[in-house]
Amino acid sequence: MTDSKMPLPRHAVIREVGLRDGLQSIATVVPTERKCAWLRDAVAAGQTEIEVGSFVPPRLLPQMADTAQVLAYAKTLPGLFASVLVPNLRGAEQALEGEADLMILPLSASHAHSLANLRKTPDEVVAELGRIRAARDASGRKTLIEGGVGTAFGCTIQGPVEPSEVLRLMQALLDAGADRVSLADTVGYADPASVSRLFEQALRLAGERLFCGHFHDTRGLALANVHAALLLGIHRFDASLAGIGGCPHAPGASGNAATEDLAFMLAAMGIDTGLDIAALLALRERVAGWIAGEPTHGALWRAGLPKTFRAVATA
Amino acid sequence: MTDSKMPLPRHAVIREVGLRDGLQSIATVVPTERKCAWLRDAVAAGQTEIEVGSFVPPRLLPQMADTAQVLAYAKTLPGLFASVLVPNLRGAEQALEGEADLMILPLSASHAHSLANLRKTPDEVVAELGRIRAARDASGRKTLIEGGVGTAFGCTIQGPVEPSEVLRLMQALLDAGADRVSLADTVGYADPASVSRLFEQALRLAGERLFCGHFHDTRGLALANVHAALLLGIHRFDASLAGIGGCPHAPGASGNAATEDLAFMLAAMGIDTGLDIAALLALRERVAGWIAGEPTHGALWRAGLPKTFRAVATA
Repeated sequence: MTDSKMPLPRHAVIREVGLRDGLQSIATVVPTERKCAWLRDAVAAGQTEIEVGSFVPPRLLPQMADTAQVLAYAKTLPGLFASVLVPNLRGAEQALEGEADLMILPLSASHAHSLANLRKTPDEVVAELGRIRAARDASGRKTLIEGGVGTAFGCTIQGPVEPSEVLRLMQALLDAGADRVSLADTVGYADPASVSRLFEQALRLAGERLFCGHFHDTRGLALANVHAALLLGIHRFDASLAGIGGCPHAPGASGNAATEDLAFMLAAMGIDTGLDIAALLALRERVAGWIAGEPTHGALWRAGLPKTFRAVATA
Repeated sequence: MTDSKMPLPRHAVIREVGLRDGLQSIATVVPTERKCAWLRDAVAAGQTEIEVGSFVPPRLLPQMADTAQVLAYAKTLPGLFASVLVPNLRGAEQALEGEADLMILPLSASHAHSLANLRKTPDEVVAELGRIRAARDASGRKTLIEGGVGTAFGCTIQGPVEPSEVLRLMQALLDAGADRVSLADTVGYADPASVSRLFEQALRLAGERLFCGHFHDTRGLALANVHAALLLGIHRFDASLAGIGGCPHAPGASGNAATEDLAFMLAAMGIDTGLDIAALLALRERVAGWIAGEPTHGALWRAGLPKTFRAVATA
């Protein structure tokens, strides 16, 4: 299933989603100035792509109520590619207004999950993407549109999600005007074999427009799943500092792949991410202090970098 | 680095090392009858290979003082292939006396680690293996001899360990009479790329006599490292229930790959292990109760099996 001719990517990007996927999943509301400090320190640590928030109604997610201000601050940070999550056209209009570099419309390939979480069928979400594309084109803004196909490996409500349905919806998003698409294991159901199979098919369909992999570490397989995707040439992954975030259906379970652990794995493998891992660990400690009492995850912060790390990273 | 022509193994074995690597690393001394209950329940859950203890002097590791009794009990369990760790000829004589199915002589490829932990150079350990082989052959016992090459990916004391030295020592162990050899990332320094490189070379050298991979999860990469080895056809991995064990040089860090998480990953990938994961999780809970207060690890016990699991496992 993997291709021996395909070398590992030489470069990879970790897209930070802690400020969105992470903070929206916990009770603590992190003040705007701390979010901005997080962004500033993340950029100083070498992070170049950050999902800074979500344009959802504040009554649904008060943690995300300041997304417009956080995005405005992100726009002042040189070299930062700032993305936001948008659940619908209304959110997309705010993203366009704020000149986000990228807006991500989540679609759940599980019909049951889609109805429960978005109150729309997946195909209604595809239609919404078409409207968002029209609005973007009419606005003259450069904001890119990503269709994020979630529950791509199964769903806590519906159970199995057919890969053929995932791929059909991915194609539909591209046909409706998505600039990019991504695949998310929203609930931690993926394994390296299913990642290898689905990403291989998705690559055949979307090519370079397949932009990102998003793996939750609910069952401890996030980094193994990243490895399976890396072997296919996928080189952009969502992750959250301290592994915060996660699925409300699995209380106490880990959230996203931990940024710092993934950064370590990639660097140890000789894949350049441009990240300063010591700076990421320092930022992790700061953020963990802000959200004291909330579950955090990851292994590197406890064990520290290997004595061999510098030698490996510069080899 | 991976071979596209090589399908994933159809079967794999998880060798349980919780009773040895796990229990020797913690302060709690688990009574003999509980160790025997662990063995019985592990076999009932489908485990077929278990490292039951270590024939080291009781004054060094009181947790392992009952290894002869535990081995004797293990021998009564039908279908169980019982291994023990032996640090030297004296330990090997006890393993032969107890008719262990396999004895594992650890060798540290890091000279500094070898001197600090075994008070022998690696080549002195190779010579000891030669004496153990002679003793085994003279005894008429069927106990197999495995040379376990540890700190194969680097060392907390010495730092880098050259792959060429790892391979030289592996060859020397085979030449001295080892029936099998294995590679261990004793301190959690390995990554999927270094695993892929070293196991590929080791396979070329040892073929089917390369018996097992042993990955510590100190920095969260154990399952990604297993995945890299699986892609080369390696199909036996050490793991410990609840991920207990670990390296005294990284306090608080995770220990071995967690048996139950690895069992889940393999099953989800369609690789048969013969293990009943629900039974493993029940045993995990029991063992965690016996060692209350000691750090335990792993993700599956918290999140539970996916709703899709049965469908995947029987696909």
